[in-house]
Amino acid sequence: MQLDTLWTNARIATMAPASPGLGIIERGAIGARDGRIAVVAPVDALPSDLRIDREVDCGGRWITPGLIDCHTHLVYAGDRAGEFELRLEGASYEEIASRGGGISATVARTREASEEELVAESLPRLDTLIGEGVTTVEIKSGYGLSKDSEIKMLRAARSLAHLRQVDVVTSFLGAHALPPEMDGDIDAYVDVVCDVMLPAIAGEGLADAVDAFCEGIAFSPAEVTRVFNAARSLGLPIRLHADQLSNLHGARLAADLGALSADHLEFTDEDGARAMAAAGTIAVVLPGAFYTLRQDRMPPIAAFRTHGVSMAVATDCNPGSSPLTSLLLAMNMAATLFRLTVEECLIGVTRNAARVLGRADSIGTIETGKQCDLAIWDVDRLAELVYRIGFNPLHQRVRRGN
Amino acid sequence: MQLDTLWTNARIATMAPASPGLGIIERGAIGARDGRIAVVAPVDALPSDLRIDREVDCGGRWITPGLIDCHTHLVYAGDRAGEFELRLEGASYEEIASRGGGISATVARTREASEEELVAESLPRLDTLIGEGVTTVEIKSGYGLSKDSEIKMLRAARSLAHLRQVDVVTSFLGAHALPPEMDGDIDAYVDVVCDVMLPAIAGEGLADAVDAFCEGIAFSPAEVTRVFNAARSLGLPIRLHADQLSNLHGARLAADLGALSADHLEFTDEDGARAMAAAGTIAVVLPGAFYTLRQDRMPPIAAFRTHGVSMAVATDCNPGSSPLTSLLLAMNMAATLFRLTVEECLIGVTRNAARVLGRADSIGTIETGKQCDLAIWDVDRLAELVYRIGFNPLHQRVRRGN
Repeated sequence: MQLDTLWTNARIATMAPASPGLGIIERGAIGARDGRIAVVAPVDALPSDLRIDREVDCGGRWITPGLIDCHTHLVYAGDRAGEFELRLEGASYEEIASRGGGISATVARTREASEEELVAESLPRLDTLIGEGVTTVEIKSGYGLSKDSEIKMLRAARSLAHLRQVDVVTSFLGAHALPPEMDGDIDAYVDVVCDVMLPAIAGEGLADAVDAFCEGIAFSPAEVTRVFNAARSLGLPIRLHADQLSNLHGARLAADLGALSADHLEFTDEDGARAMAAAGTIAVVLPGAFYTLRQDRMPPIAAFRTHGVSMAVATDCNPGSSPLTSLLLAMNMAATLFRLTVEECLIGVTRNAARVLGRADSIGTIETGKQCDLAIWDVDRLAELVYRIGFNPLHQRVRRGN
Repeated sequence: MQLDTLWTNARIATMAPASPGLGIIERGAIGARDGRIAVVAPVDALPSDLRIDREVDCGGRWITPGLIDCHTHLVYAGDRAGEFELRLEGASYEEIASRGGGISATVARTREASEEELVAESLPRLDTLIGEGVTTVEIKSGYGLSKDSEIKMLRAARSLAHLRQVDVVTSFLGAHALPPEMDGDIDAYVDVVCDVMLPAIAGEGLADAVDAFCEGIAFSPAEVTRVFNAARSLGLPIRLHADQLSNLHGARLAADLGALSADHLEFTDEDGARAMAAAGTIAVVLPGAFYTLRQDRMPPIAAFRTHGVSMAVATDCNPGSSPLTSLLLAMNMAATLFRLTVEECLIGVTRNAARVLGRADSIGTIETGKQCDLAIWDVDRLAELVYRIGFNPLHQRVRRGN
């Protein structure tokens, strides 16, 4: 067997679903050929006929799959630091809105920006994620809210993948907020999303999935259903921002429509958890937003466990409710604030995050045939990745074998 | 005037106490000579007779004083990631204690470690702080709990200052916990702290201050008073871990004994705040521990403001209740969880942190005559330092003019 690289003398958390827990190989090796994993095995059980171009002694370090941030809004222009500052000085949400703050500030700035400016502003955020071992990142549109500016956002997201060694998976989130020029006519806007934006975006192949924000302050279940039916008719998978601030039964809606994931879920009830389990819809928990918004009601983690809902963890990186660019910290928050176990956190940023993105066949675990995306860590035990706060023990990141 | 370096074309937050707010100079310059600040002024108002060896154009970037982390326990051996993992899996504190967990685990590991091992284990934590612009860090003992191992910890802390370009300020925290071999005899241990440890440590010049943990699970106000009287008789300033888990009136005790600071303060009452204000004792808030312990009662920030108590913010970096090595994140937590304003956070890691360490004459602000410790930031507005989560916009760090 010919290998380009063999990483050896490593402790490997394969995350392979057939193995218990994290699928640990205590003294293992991983061989790559043409960017894919050709062999993963205990060092003592490697095939005897290996021809190896490059061998890397990992010195007993831990290797996990490259991390996957499966829910971000990291392409946008401007920031909301000024608004953050005003709010701490006592300004109300109304005052901030009347000064042009809130999501409409980001929409205005994002519309004004060129695609190149969007890319330039987003790169430092992406680089921070990459610096922690992230090899795949999902990026949503949703701050353009017009055909051209949504397309601009998605093109910017796609071009990030050419500027850095990272896979980008895009989601079209036209149904994020009602744009100001629609003058409150939400039905007319949903028409535009379904009949104008979606066909154009699907036609250009700019979206890997379609997302929507189901909430009293955003879109109703009926409006979301229209968007999702249009998405499904174009063959696009769907995901949903569900039950973040109130229980509109978004989790059940996502499950009923066959969504890959339902995300946030602070107000999801037991019926929603049951429906998600039956449909195989994954729960994406986003503790960065929970923390920033100082929420006190947490997602029904116990119900997810009872009914067998798989969980993923992501940053929700966005300028308003989660200006977070650390997936390691998202894991710490998921453990500290939501009481996810270390194992749930680690599977939630690898194997389950890959499933959320519909990429379980190619990334998220260390198994033969998969893309050779790895993170090599300077830690004695993997729990340190979750336990430490504001610390980055990444030793090396490998993407497609390099 | 001869300058070694002039940083010019910068926006400067001097933090000078005579100026309002952050003491901002919109288009300013800072000149250093022999490691000290020789001039700080608007670019247009610089002296005309400058002779400059090196000029640095800051491109309009923001400059703050080098950051000061005024409360850490960053010298220790081992970590408690395993215990963190067990607790998330449902193990009780009793089970963890019976398996040798908790602070006694850190004490055992720290006692076993050599001074060199302690230094080696602590350096990555220190380097993470330094990487965010920290130029001065306080480090406490308190995991040795015997004369020799407390001395070993303090020597390790001192030697960190020789291995990195950073100032280290030490605190002797013998009164942190009762060591296991004292068999519950807290009076006898306080005798050892006062009569054996303190004179030896003061004799070697190993402690810049003396700290204690006043709490039901630690030391009573009467025991703390004995330790502090011994410290004061040796001319050492005092600080106190006060009112973190219950109200033993530690804030008032600290104020009455003239402490530089009282730290934590979640259960401090209005009387305590009033006493601190009268004594000039600074409130050090430690949101990393509040977050990790999932506390719900926050320090009386409004009372601190009403009565004029100065506030500082620190990481509390320690292996149990705050495995946090990001002072930027500590600021975000202070704003998000405790509602400190951006200005309070920034002054809390510079000017007020210097006062906590008794070093207000030499660090913490950008003023003529002070040590030239600077942090230069890639941000448009300083609020970004507090607003962003898990992002490090440090452009350059300057310590003693280099």
